[in-house]
Amino acid sequence: MKKCYGGIDLGGTFIKAGLLSSDGEVMAKFKIPTAVDSGAAAVRENLIRAGLRIINMAKKRGLVLAGIGVGSPGTVRYPEGLVTGSSPNIPGWVGVNIRRLFSRFSITVRGDNDANCMALAESKFGAGKGTRLGFYLTIGTGIGGAIVVEGSLVRGASFAAGEFGHTIFRYGGKKYKTGRRGQLEAYAAAPALVSQARLAAGGFKGSILTKYADNLSPREIFEAFRAGDPAAVAAVSENARMIGTAIGSVVNLLNPEIVVIGGGLSAGGSEYIELIRKSAISFAFESATSSLKIKTARFGNDAGWIGAACLNI
Amino acid sequence: MKKCYGGIDLGGTFIKAGLLSSDGEVMAKFKIPTAVDSGAAAVRENLIRAGLRIINMAKKRGLVLAGIGVGSPGTVRYPEGLVTGSSPNIPGWVGVNIRRLFSRFSITVRGDNDANCMALAESKFGAGKGTRLGFYLTIGTGIGGAIVVEGSLVRGASFAAGEFGHTIFRYGGKKYKTGRRGQLEAYAAAPALVSQARLAAGGFKGSILTKYADNLSPREIFEAFRAGDPAAVAAVSENARMIGTAIGSVVNLLNPEIVVIGGGLSAGGSEYIELIRKSAISFAFESATSSLKIKTARFGNDAGWIGAACLNI
Repeated sequence: MKKCYGGIDLGGTFIKAGLLSSDGEVMAKFKIPTAVDSGAAAVRENLIRAGLRIINMAKKRGLVLAGIGVGSPGTVRYPEGLVTGSSPNIPGWVGVNIRRLFSRFSITVRGDNDANCMALAESKFGAGKGTRLGFYLTIGTGIGGAIVVEGSLVRGASFAAGEFGHTIFRYGGKKYKTGRRGQLEAYAAAPALVSQARLAAGGFKGSILTKYADNLSPREIFEAFRAGDPAAVAAVSENARMIGTAIGSVVNLLNPEIVVIGGGLSAGGSEYIELIRKSAISFAFESATSSLKIKTARFGNDAGWIGAACLNI
Repeated sequence: MKKCYGGIDLGGTFIKAGLLSSDGEVMAKFKIPTAVDSGAAAVRENLIRAGLRIINMAKKRGLVLAGIGVGSPGTVRYPEGLVTGSSPNIPGWVGVNIRRLFSRFSITVRGDNDANCMALAESKFGAGKGTRLGFYLTIGTGIGGAIVVEGSLVRGASFAAGEFGHTIFRYGGKKYKTGRRGQLEAYAAAPALVSQARLAAGGFKGSILTKYADNLSPREIFEAFRAGDPAAVAAVSENARMIGTAIGSVVNLLNPEIVVIGGGLSAGGSEYIELIRKSAISFAFESATSSLKIKTARFGNDAGWIGAACLNI
């Protein structure tokens, strides 16, 4: 019987899940609401529901389910699958033991941080396939990161590595919700892009963006950017310059073979990614960029559950 | 016959060298001037002279010389020992092949970047001994860094990793000599500390520092700091806050077990290091600092040649 691997990505809005073959082929996928508003107990129930559905899907297809992996926000102690660090998107999630949650199923279950899962999917089967030293980042509501060295994830001494969004970007700058000042995420994540676009729209009379008022989201900003709206061009270009500088900074520190950009903003389009690339290249040393590849993530919104499935491959 | 390992550290002012036992014991050491002002050819001659002296010292002591390692500024392609990246302190040094330089000696010779050598010495026999994931930095005229993962140096895809001084610190800030803006080194290396101290001295009438005029160096600043001079206290505290923030930033990214601080400024004293530690801890996430150790380098000015010797151990 053919083997398959289950993957579950616990997001703030949806739980995405599916079955993966050992060579990275998507065999089935689905998503259900996370229901964060109903509390942590409801989230746990929904996770188990997703696990049951995976088990049934495998059975129906006549496949051997070789394990289930779960990607979770926050810091996850990989060996135990224990969530030890806070995840602002799912209140009350610290202390949950992912492996124990599934213990009734007598199946191998592993849990890891969601950004680590994304990196695993991309390095094993996606944009980073075949590389040994890579930096993987996601830009969305937050900014996450993961580092692969010699083909393995660098999880860190206490499984807390990869907090790219919380590296220093502007010393003495804005106070962020973490209480610290000047972190990258405060300047370059999606909410900051929206604020900057709104500000820019005020300065360009007739900008398309003015019509959205409080409903402005990155999707409309990128549409206006592609249409050449000057406010959107200003805001997106500055965002790309910031993200690119921060990437160039990591390139100087790690000198990776590849940088893979994922998350919601990575769907901003090739022109946006090209602006990021240029900014990264100009900030980094030539000796570190001569053979550097900067790519967008291959798996988009599926990277999380695919990477979670990879935990068992 | 007992084995020994030769190490050479090529500095901007001195070539430091010595013999190391396989368990990290210093068996002999010496230093000679680098003579940078006489040109790259003279530097090459002096390196060879240091190599010859190592060979003779081993012979005189009845030891088997199992190899010579050389730490050089700039980017060094480790497998070939080829200097590929510029080193502002030794003009004309790019293109030198360290292994070929010593080919007449029929002995194993390896060359690596000097910050990598420092990290190797500290992780093998010094402050980082027994740890698997460490971040090593040197603060002096410049700021360098090196990363050890699973006990091995992360040299980078093109051997250019570790440029901690050229990570982003203040986006949109000062233009540095590299042509980029806002890099850490422009704010927190020794020359910046001296400028800040001079500026602070102007604001505190009667500061000890005013008497040094153009001859002010970190040594006098740290002396005045320990004596409680308010200008020196202000400048050193701010420098420690900046270095600490940058370390905390790397801690969020890498979550190392240990951070080891070396280089000239690390001799600033325990109170200075404690200020750095506090700032690092307050910028980094608790999940990444719960078991973090921050230590000063054990080998001080000898770390370079000791680490170079370690290349063959």
